[in-house]
Formats: sequence, structure tokens, C-alpha cells
Amino acid sequence: MSIQQPTWTPPVRKNEVPVLKVYNSLTRSKVEFVPNDGNLVKWYNCGPTVYDFSHMGHARNYVTQDILRRIMSDYFGYDVHFVMNITDIDDKIILRARQNHLVDNFRAKQTALTPELVELVSSAWVEYVRSKVSKGLLETDRLASGQERSAWASFTTRFQDKAWKQECLKRDEKFEMHFNASNKTLLAIEQAEQALKVGQTDATVAHKFIDEARDILAPVLDRQEGSTVTDPSIFRSTAAYWENEFFKDMRRLRVRDPDTLTRVTEFVPEIASFVEGIVKNGFGYEVDGSVYFDTRTFDKADGHDYAKLEPWSKGNRELLEEGEGALSAGTGRRSAADFALWKASKPGEPSWPSPWGPGRPGWHIECSVMASAIFGDNMDIHSGGIDLAFPHHDNEMAQSEAYHNCPAWVNYFLHTGHLHIEGLKMSKSLKNFITIDEILQKYSARQLRLAFLTQLWNSKIDFSDSLMTGEVRNIETSLNNFFTNVKALINQVEASGPPLDTQHRFRDVERELTERFHQSQSAFRAALCDSFNTPEALDVLRELVSRTNVYINSRSVNLDIGVIERIARWVGQMLRMFGLGEGETSEIGWGQELASGEENINREEVLMPYIRTLSSFRDGVRKVAIAKGENALKDILALCDRLRDVDLVPLGVALDDVEDGKALVKLVPPSELIKAREEKRAQMEVKAAKKAAALEAERQARLAKLEKGRVSPQDLFKPPNVPEGSYNTWDDNGVPLTDGEGKELSKNQVKRVQKAWADQKKRHEEFLAWQQSEQAK
Amino acid sequence: MSIQQPTWTPPVRKNEVPVLKVYNSLTRSKVEFVPNDGNLVKWYNCGPTVYDFSHMGHARNYVTQDILRRIMSDYFGYDVHFVMNITDIDDKIILRARQNHLVDNFRAKQTALTPELVELVSSAWVEYVRSKVSKGLLETDRLASGQERSAWASFTTRFQDKAWKQECLKRDEKFEMHFNASNKTLLAIEQAEQALKVGQTDATVAHKFIDEARDILAPVLDRQEGSTVTDPSIFRSTAAYWENEFFKDMRRLRVRDPDTLTRVTEFVPEIASFVEGIVKNGFGYEVDGSVYFDTRTFDKADGHDYAKLEPWSKGNRELLEEGEGALSAGTGRRSAADFALWKASKPGEPSWPSPWGPGRPGWHIECSVMASAIFGDNMDIHSGGIDLAFPHHDNEMAQSEAYHNCPAWVNYFLHTGHLHIEGLKMSKSLKNFITIDEILQKYSARQLRLAFLTQLWNSKIDFSDSLMTGEVRNIETSLNNFFTNVKALINQVEASGPPLDTQHRFRDVERELTERFHQSQSAFRAALCDSFNTPEALDVLRELVSRTNVYINSRSVNLDIGVIERIARWVGQMLRMFGLGEGETSEIGWGQELASGEENINREEVLMPYIRTLSSFRDGVRKVAIAKGENALKDILALCDRLRDVDLVPLGVALDDVEDGKALVKLVPPSELIKAREEKRAQMEVKAAKKAAALEAERQARLAKLEKGRVSPQDLFKPPNVPEGSYNTWDDNGVPLTDGEGKELSKNQVKRVQKAWADQKKRHEEFLAWQQSEQAK
Repeated sequence: MSIQQPTWTPPVRKNEVPVLKVYNSLTRSKVEFVPNDGNLVKWYNCGPTVYDFSHMGHARNYVTQDILRRIMSDYFGYDVHFVMNITDIDDKIILRARQNHLVDNFRAKQTALTPELVELVSSAWVEYVRSKVSKGLLETDRLASGQERSAWASFTTRFQDKAWKQECLKRDEKFEMHFNASNKTLLAIEQAEQALKVGQTDATVAHKFIDEARDILAPVLDRQEGSTVTDPSIFRSTAAYWENEFFKDMRRLRVRDPDTLTRVTEFVPEIASFVEGIVKNGFGYEVDGSVYFDTRTFDKADGHDYAKLEPWSKGNRELLEEGEGALSAGTGRRSAADFALWKASKPGEPSWPSPWGPGRPGWHIECSVMASAIFGDNMDIHSGGIDLAFPHHDNEMAQSEAYHNCPAWVNYFLHTGHLHIEGLKMSKSLKNFITIDEILQKYSARQLRLAFLTQLWNSKIDFSDSLMTGEVRNIETSLNNFFTNVKALINQVEASGPPLDTQHRFRDVERELTERFHQSQSAFRAALCDSFNTPEALDVLRELVSRTNVYINSRSVNLDIGVIERIARWVGQMLRMFGLGEGETSEIGWGQELASGEENINREEVLMPYIRTLSSFRDGVRKVAIAKGENALKDILALCDRLRDVDLVPLGVALDDVEDGKALVKLVPPSELIKAREEKRAQMEVKAAKKAAALEAERQARLAKLEKGRVSPQDLFKPPNVPEGSYNTWDDNGVPLTDGEGKELSKNQVKRVQKAWADQKKRHEEFLAWQQSEQAK
Repeated sequence: MSIQQPTWTPPVRKNEVPVLKVYNSLTRSKVEFVPNDGNLVKWYNCGPTVYDFSHMGHARNYVTQDILRRIMSDYFGYDVHFVMNITDIDDKIILRARQNHLVDNFRAKQTALTPELVELVSSAWVEYVRSKVSKGLLETDRLASGQERSAWASFTTRFQDKAWKQECLKRDEKFEMHFNASNKTLLAIEQAEQALKVGQTDATVAHKFIDEARDILAPVLDRQEGSTVTDPSIFRSTAAYWENEFFKDMRRLRVRDPDTLTRVTEFVPEIASFVEGIVKNGFGYEVDGSVYFDTRTFDKADGHDYAKLEPWSKGNRELLEEGEGALSAGTGRRSAADFALWKASKPGEPSWPSPWGPGRPGWHIECSVMASAIFGDNMDIHSGGIDLAFPHHDNEMAQSEAYHNCPAWVNYFLHTGHLHIEGLKMSKSLKNFITIDEILQKYSARQLRLAFLTQLWNSKIDFSDSLMTGEVRNIETSLNNFFTNVKALINQVEASGPPLDTQHRFRDVERELTERFHQSQSAFRAALCDSFNTPEALDVLRELVSRTNVYINSRSVNLDIGVIERIARWVGQMLRMFGLGEGETSEIGWGQELASGEENINREEVLMPYIRTLSSFRDGVRKVAIAKGENALKDILALCDRLRDVDLVPLGVALDDVEDGKALVKLVPPSELIKAREEKRAQMEVKAAKKAAALEAERQARLAKLEKGRVSPQDLFKPPNVPEGSYNTWDDNGVPLTDGEGKELSKNQVKRVQKAWADQKKRHEEFLAWQQSEQAK
């Protein structure tokens, strides 16, 4: 073929696409994100230590990480390998598991409330108050003379004073916790003493007493018998329980499961040999069965730096101690900055064999080993809460770089910011945390996530009711309204089929809106490329929605539905991408926000055939039952009513019975139906009460009337029914013949008494009949 | 803060991510895809001309475009603006709409079968045979003498010969269509002649006759009265009807709606002024109210080339003529390669005002104007079927570049390949097409799409039953099995909660599988970057699934569920990305493949509460009705049965009534229930027939028995009940006294006849009672 195509000139990009930059804690600046291996992103996220309920701090951290992960995979299209650990060896878990185990055992053995038991708890309380609360706050005189209760009483009275309370709280951040525990237990002791006196000593009373004194009893039992707890499954099953609870909460928050989940208990042999490697490389040393990391040697070594994230925190004793844990021995370190790689276990602490005797891993080494087991000597991203930066993450890095002898174990460190609640720091030790379960009773998972999206992932977030009921609720409502409107418009257009009017609707106004839309898409991308700037990205969506609303309102009927639908689809997709909605991706919007357990489906389409069947069956049954009109069929009608008023209400199905016998079927939110039912019930009750009152009044009137007939006509004109001496003589029926003075009654008088007598006879007969029927009852 | 972080070294990518290259018809090679404006992709796809059912050729083209579009937006993350047109001004539409309108009108006017009507159709048939079929195939002698029917009869006889048939088919590709139309109409004429003879002449007969002769009658009516058709809504409503049908089919094939839809009728004023612009720029000229494009002038102009896609096809008369349409006048062009921009309309053709008098747009100009209206003077991608490349797309480009005076109106031209069916070309004109409705009765939308995915988008595809029942069915089955297995494994693990065995499962074999997985992700990307190589990408998925199966089978119980789940999720996501599945994206797999109209939901979870309510209500009603045992309540039981046997069957709900009165509720595919119901009905019929036969036999036996009692005991021993002369004398009751010879009966004989008499008396009484009861009926 000799004829050739003309030369093709490749297009030149007018506008470059921005690159993704992320705020890297290793530089404390935004740097370009370059994954190490093609499109794959190796990502390790610090998971929870599982020994208690998950709280808002967890929500903030894991939801935010989930948002970043979704942006990376679902928006930027990276192939992300997201690894997370579960810390299931930890001093907090050991203490919690062991103490629970001991208290449970102790409780099971108590069959009655005894003076010994009360004494045991009392002395535990004294010890607790002296060690945890006193610190110069209680009157030393009374304490010295063993008058702890009186010292406590005067202390709590003084505690009413605000300034004094502030002073107490300032001296010890855990003060409030101790104060509450002490008060609660003292009350229980006093109640127990009372119970002993009055002889209420059964097992139930004893167990209730132990439950209330639990916090203060546990450390005493632990000190006495802790070393006898040796079964490792006690520790593991506590962790497994809380791990399960953690993931339940995460799923309710729509946080995706990690791709790979690692547990410390599953990596102990690897940890021991990892520690050996560090010692072999000259960066670790053993003291009394424990092994420590030699921070000074490491810091001085060529190509290594200790504390890359926070070099200024090196040697911060407070931070270091928290990292070492409550059960740490910690003597014999070469430097105060050195930290445990391996801890010798005392009796009552779980232990594994090692070259240094039975022991268990230090905290930081766990993550180094697990992440290395999956990723080797380098990963793209390591993430976690900002409070983990030092010493945890710095120590992790030092250990791993010491082991692998590599220059950089982590390329990008992403730290999520702190969470404050109503302006105050939330802290585990203060126990002022809101659990995830509690917050989800107040707000939906979508609202929480929206709240986090309105803030930068690495900034401090101040979570407050005003944020939730203000900005978040506004965003949610305006988006919901937008989607509802657009869907209604589309339905309208689709119902009428292709238009016959031969007018296109891609005019200047639609061209402008389309251009705005494309600009929004660019701006959205730019925001996410700017270190996942989700508040900015949300603003772009909101601005676009509001522009589109302006277009919709300005055009009313002559709309180009195509441009609206396209915008709505994209906005919905981006919201879903953030994890704000699930369900059919081809559907417009972000799906219905449903309570947990409810399915996100098109209820109308899916359920209506079933419900219609149900309803028409019921219609038929009612028709038959009504037509027969027999008493026996009342049961069937009652069934029909029960179906409507009881069974279908929680399913969100309303059946409105109408005259033609075919009930109207409606799908309504269950809460509305329940409310309506309550209102109806209340109305019915009012009505019933009124009716009952009327009946009672009627009954009383009837009784009063009957009561008038109690006197027999024979006695009607005799005392005490008439004043003594009213009449003198009577006939056989008791009708008076002469008056009190013996004078015969006048004709008129006779007429009157005879009429009265006849009336009373009738009344008396009625009275007797009623009396008889009452007796028969 | 004087302490600084150590210097951070940005990571260096080990493996670069491949760039997307696409096969561009403008270079006939794979070139890098560079969008003009950031991340935005402006894409125009040639839509259908709407005048008939959509067929497999449409499916191939639009499903394939949909796949490319989904890859671009959902995999590569481009912001795609996908525009498609509907061609609703076209000679085929005009002819179809006008002829349908004329035949419908004509039909409505015929109130009886008349000789005139038969004569009209007969002469239409003669004309048709002469003009469309003869071409030297029919015997000219007989044709010449007006013996067309006899010529046709001998021709059809000869048509049995295979070689002769082949010869005929070769001479004219539309031959078979004409042959069939002729045969069908001739048969109808002969039947009509017969009907006239026997006087069957009512309107129904006449209308049936017209319906069968429609194809041959229409052109005659059109020639006679076509010019009277002036109402433009006749043309538009035909197009609107078929447009609606087209989108219904597309949605069934899971083809996404275009972002922007344009219709030619809506852009006519813009087209006229676009043509004016071309003329003004010196590239168009008017002849008799029509305007043509000056291909030679354009080709010679600086910076312009005519027929960039297929320069070797310039002046290909056959291709050009097809592009010009059946109603084209086409005289007076400066060059044979010139084509119509604007056509003067004759009476009976829709027309719009223009500077050149009333007329309508040429075919090619429509797309130039609509695409320019949305995108202006440049777009990234223009797509369409390969048969549109020349002249349609070449002419489109020439027009637009002539109007905008731009060097390149389209940057990338993507042409989908041809479709063959069982090795043969499918062609509209041959009418051998399979409609989308037909194919979807045989295969699911998912299977069809899978078939297209197994082939390159720009290659010829040979669609065959062996492809569908072989490769496609295999892929589908192995993927379904994989997802089912994985889901079962996950359920198992989730049911048992976090493991307590402190063994991790990220061993060498899992590490290897994970690496394979990452390699598969890279290979998948590489395949799609290689000009959307979907067969290769599918192979990557299949290979990964098979590797994972090997792992699952080798490990049986001690599996790492994490790695399996991760792979299954990704495979499912990629399949959904191709449009092979819809539904919850968080769900594993690609959803259930459902018949159209069925919803893709978790039926068990969603519906069961409703159905259980329904069922227990029904249980209660049954219980009451059964307990009362009254006839009146049979109606209620009948309702209950009807619900079970009629209403719930198509909903896929089976109610099994069991003894405790609480029916077992099951969700079953409706087809199974219908089958079971049919079987039950058949069994019942057999049983009923048997019972009826037994009853009849019993009735006959009873009748026979009763019949024996017809004779009264008086007559029992008299002729004709006994032979003449058996007895001589009888007593009053008719009991014989003497035998035929007058001899007294013996004692034994007397005993016997008395016994017989008594028996007969009893029988006769029974007979009389029955006779009476029969008469009373």
C-alpha cells in the first residue's frame, strides 16, 4: 500500500496533573509521594492494644487512616497492601487479665458475706487511699491515728470547694479516677457492715459487694496471688475478646479490615531471633534476662540516627517510662534512653523461652518484627496516632534499621492528629473517654466520618456537639436534599421518555456549568494531592452542589438533565470513595444512612411485591371474617390487627385499612410508625379513661337511685324514715291513717302518701332485684 | 528548636509504572495516551441510527466502548466526559417512518377484502419481482408474456438446487430478503383470492392480508403518496420509539448511559450555520439547494489532509454511496469524492429552513456539529465501529477541520472491530442479525461481556456457540467456584472468632502467594496499559485464581484467610470494574448473575423478616380456621393455599406446611418452585383420574347389582325371566307351585324357589328405592 496516512502529532498537555504530596513526619513537611515498587504501596498501621472498649480516640485514628487508605486505593488507584497489628502482649493486658481472673475466682469462692470479707476490703481501701489519694491531700493527723474514714469524710466535704478541687486534679491527672473508686468502695463497705448487722449475708449480697469493690480489691489480690497465674490462655483470651469487640466497632464505623492482620503472640519466636540479630549487630545488651537497645551506640554508628522523628525528645524520661510499661523492672541500663527489647518475665506474667531465659517482647520490638515479617527492610508508609511518634515509632525504626542494617526502614511516616472533646484532651488514664458504642447512639457513622473529613487528618480535631449539629448536619442535609432533588428530576424525565420537542439543552448556561464541573474535578484532585486535604475537597463538592442548585432553580422545567445527573453521580462517587456511603455504585447519591443491621437496598423495588402479597392475603382473610360476622371469627380479625399494629411496625410497613377492604401499603421509617403507634395508644388511653370515668359516674348515679329504694314501703312512713311522731296509726301496708296527733289524714294527704308508697314499692323492688343479682355475683 | 531531624532521602522507584498506550486509527499503531487538559478526557462516541431493533453488532460495539470507558474512568481514574449522539435524521428513518405511516393509514381505511385490493397487491408483487428479484434469474419468456407467477413457481422449484441457490445469493447480497418477501406475499395473494371466492371478505381478512403483504405494498404506496407526508412528528416519534428501545437494550447489557446525549433533530439550526461556515471558508459549494464538501480543495489546502484515517479509500464509490443515503439526489458534484453537507428535501422528506432553501443535514455533518457543540475544536477520543472509519469519520474530521480551521480535531480515534457470527459476516442488509433481546434469552449480559473481554477490542470477533459454551462458560464457572469457596472459608473463620493458637500464618508459602498477587496486579496494569489488552488481563486474573486455588487445596485447614480474602476482593473489584457485576462494592465477588428485573441483593437477609411475618400470620389464620372446623371457614383455608401455591411461587418463596402448624419458609429460585408445582399438579391429575376410574367402576358394579333387582319377585318365575313352560302354576306372590309338567315341586325345589323369591324381593325393593331417588334428582 503506497498511500500513507499523514503524520500524526502527539497532543501536548495544556494543564499538567498535580502529583500527590504527603505530610511526612520524617521531614515535617509535604513531600512528593513516590512508592518504591511500581504501583504497590506497602503500608503498616499501628493497631490497638486490646484490653478495653474502643473509644473516640480510636475512632478518630482508625477512621482517618481508613479515609487515607481509601483515597490511595480508590481515588489514586494504588495497589495498597495495608498491614495492621493487634498488640496482644502488653503490661496493661497482663494486669487486666490477671486481676479479672483473680477477682472472678475469689468471687466464685465466697458463699456468704463474712466479717473477714468486709475486713479484707476495708484494709484494701485503707491501703488504696493512703497510696493513691493521700499525697498530702488528706489530714495527716487522722491518717496517722488510723482514722482514715474520718480523714476521707472531711476531705470530701472540702472537695465541694472549686478551687480545692482544681488543686487536687492538678496534682495528679488520675486523681478523679482514684477519688471515684475510693468513694464507691467506701459506700459499699458501709453498706456491707450494715448488712452484717441485720444478718443479710447470703451469696448475692457478698457478690454485689465484691463487684462494687472490684477496682480496689483487684490490686490486693494480684499482689497476694498474681504470681500463681500461669495459664497463658488467660492472657490470650482476654485479648481475643477485646480484639473481636474492636473489629465490631470498626465495621460499624465502615473502617475496612486490614489486608493483613498480625498478632504479637503469633510472632514471639521471630521476635526473639530479631532481638538476637540486634545484639549480634552490636546494638543490644542483656541485663538479668532482659535485653535493652543501646541507643548511644546506635546514634553514633555510621549511617544511623536515633529518634529520626523527634530527636529533641531523646531522653524524655516521662515519655520513655510510659513506653516501658507498668511491669517493667528496668534497672541496669547503660543509658536512661535505652529501652527494653526483651523483658524477663516474673511469675504471673506470660513468658516464652529465649536465649536469655523465659521472658516476653518489649512493646516497640513487636511492630518492628511484624512489619519486617511482611515487608522486609523497607516500607512505603508507616502510620499511627501522633502520640506514638516518640518513643514508639522512633524506637521501632532504630531497632529495624539496627537489625536490617538499612538506612531507612520507613519512607513516609503519617501521623494522625490528636482528638479533643469540647476543647479538652481526652485521655485513657482519665477514663473520660466516650466509647464508640456511645457515640454511635448519638451520631451515625456517616456523620462521624464527615466530622473527621472536615478537618485535616494530621491536625488536632476538636470534637464537639456544636460541630456535629452545626457544620456536619448542614453538609449532610444539603447533600441529601441535592440527591433527592436530582433523583426526582431524573425520574420525571425518564417517565416521559425521549423528548419530541427537537430542542437541545446544551446552551451557554449548561456549557458553563459543565466547565465549572470540570474545574471542580481538577480542584478536588488538587486538594487530595495536597496531602489529602479533605476539608478543601469537601468544600469543592459543596460549592459544586450549590452551583448546580442555582442552575436547577433558575431553569425550573427546561433543564438539561444530563449535566445534572453527571454531576450528581460524580459527587456521590466521591462521597462513597471517602467511605461515606456503600451500596450500588451505579446508584445516584451515597445511599440511605441506615441504622446498623439495616440493609442498604432499594426497599421499594425489592420488598413491595412481598408486602403486597402479604397485604392482599390479609385483605382476603379479613373480608371472609367480616362477611361471616360470627363471634368465632373475631380471632381472625385480631390476627389481622396484630399484623398491622405489632408485626409490621418494626419492618417499616404501614397498612392503612380503607373502606374497599384493600389496605393501602406504605414503606415508612420504622421510627415514624412507632411514634404514630405510641400517639394512637396515648389517645386511646385518654379516650378509655374518659369512657371509664363516664361509666363510673353513671354507675354512681344508678347506685344512688337504687339506694333510695333500700327502705321497704312498709317502713317508709315509720321512724327513722320520718321524724318520730309524724304519724300515729298505719294500715297493714304501712300507709299512714292518722297524723302524729291522731287526726285522720285529709283526702289530699291520703292521695300523696299513697302515691309516695306506690313509688317506693317500685323502687324497693328494683333495689331487691339488684341486691339479689349482686349477691349472685 | 536547635535540634534538627536528620536529612530525609526521597525514595527511588525500583520499577516504573507503565504508561497507557492506545491503538490509534490515525497512526494504525499504539501510541502513548496524553489527554489535552489535565485529567479530563473528552470523548465522543458515534451512537446509533434509530429505526429498528438493536442487534449483536450493536452489542459488540457499545459493550466494548463501555468496557474501554470503564477502564479509563474506574481503573485509570480519568475524569471522562463521554458524549454520544442519536442519529434521528436519516434516509432509513425517513423511509421507515413514512412507509409505516402510509400502510397504517391505508389499512385503517380498508373495511373489507375487495377484488381491487387484491389486484393492487398483485401488481405490486409483479413489480417487486420484476425489479428486485429477476436480474436474469427468472425465465424471461414467461415474464415477457406476463406469466410472472408461473415464472416464479419454476424458479422456486429450481431454488432447491444448492448450487443454483448459492449462485443467486452471490448475485445480490439482499437476495434472500427479497426472495422471502416475494414468497410470503404471493402466498397471501393466493389465499386472498381464495377468500374472495368463498366470500370471506370481512375487515379482519383484509387487514391480515395487508399485514402479510406489507413489505411489498409499502414502496408502492410510498411512491404514490409519499410526498403527501409532511407532519414532522411522524419522523421524530419513530426515532424516539427506537431510541427508547435502544437504551433499554443497553441497560440490560449494563452499558452506562452517556454523560451527554445529543440528537440531530435538536441541532439543525447549528448544523445549517456550521455548513455556512464551511462554505465561507471555501470548502463547500451549493448545487440546487444542496451543499457539498469540496474534498479536492480541502486536500490541497495548507495544513489540511482529506481522509486521514483511510487515505487509500478516497474516491471509493461504493463506500461513498452508502454514506450518502437512499434518498440522495447527488448530481452536480465537482468531484465524485465530494459528499453532501446539506440535502435539499423533496416533498415527503422532513425539512428545515436554510440559506439554500428547505432541506436537511447530510449524515457526516451531524456528528461534526454535535461534537463541536460540546467540545469545540478539539477532543481527546473519538470512537465508533470500524466500518464507520471511511467515509463517515474521515468526512467528519475534514468538515470540522475545515470549519474550525484547526490542524487536528481528534487526537485519538478508537475503532472497535467487526463482529462475525459463526464465521460469517453479520450485515443489517442481509437481515441475518440476532437481536439483543434474542441473545439475552440465550446468554446473560455477563456472559456476553465476558465473551467480548476475551477478545481484543479492536480485533474482529467471531461470536459462536462454541465460544460461549466453551471458554466463556469455563471462565464464569471457575470464578464463581472461587468466590463461593472463599466466602465459605471466610464465614468459617469469622464464626470461630480470633484464633487462640498463637501461630501466625504468614509463612513462606503465603509470602510467595502475596508476591504472586502483587505481580498479578502489575501484570494486569501492564495489560490494560498495552492498549486495553483485556484478554491478557483476564488471563492474569484466571492465573491468579488458579494459583490461589492451589494454595487453598494444599493447606486445607491451616490457611491464612487474609491473603485469600485480599486476592478475592481484588479479583472481584477488577471484574466489577469491567462491568461484569454490580452491587455492593464491599462484597466479595462480582455479585449474583440475575435474570433481568431481579435485584442483586442478599435475599435471605433482606426479605426473610417480611416473609416470616407473612408466614406466621398465615399460620395463625390457618390455626383458627382449622380449629373451628366449620364449613364457612373453608374459604379461609383456600386463601391460605392460594397464597402458598399461586402468589408466593413467582416470588421464590416456598411454604412447607408441617404438623405443628408453623410452615417452613424457604427462598428458592422461582423456576424450581414452578417446576415442582407443575409436577405436583401432574401427580394430582393422575391420582384424580385413578380415583375417578375407580368410582366409575364401583358405580357400574352397583348399577349391575341394582339391575338384577329390576324384575319384581312376582314375575321372577314367569317368562321371559324363565324359559316358557318352566312352571305351570304359581301362588299369589308368583312363587311356582308346579313345574312345567304340572308336577308339584319337591320340598327342596320349594325351598330353593322361596329363597330365590325372598332374595329377589329384597333386590327389587332396593331397585325401586334407587329408581325413585334417581327420578327425584
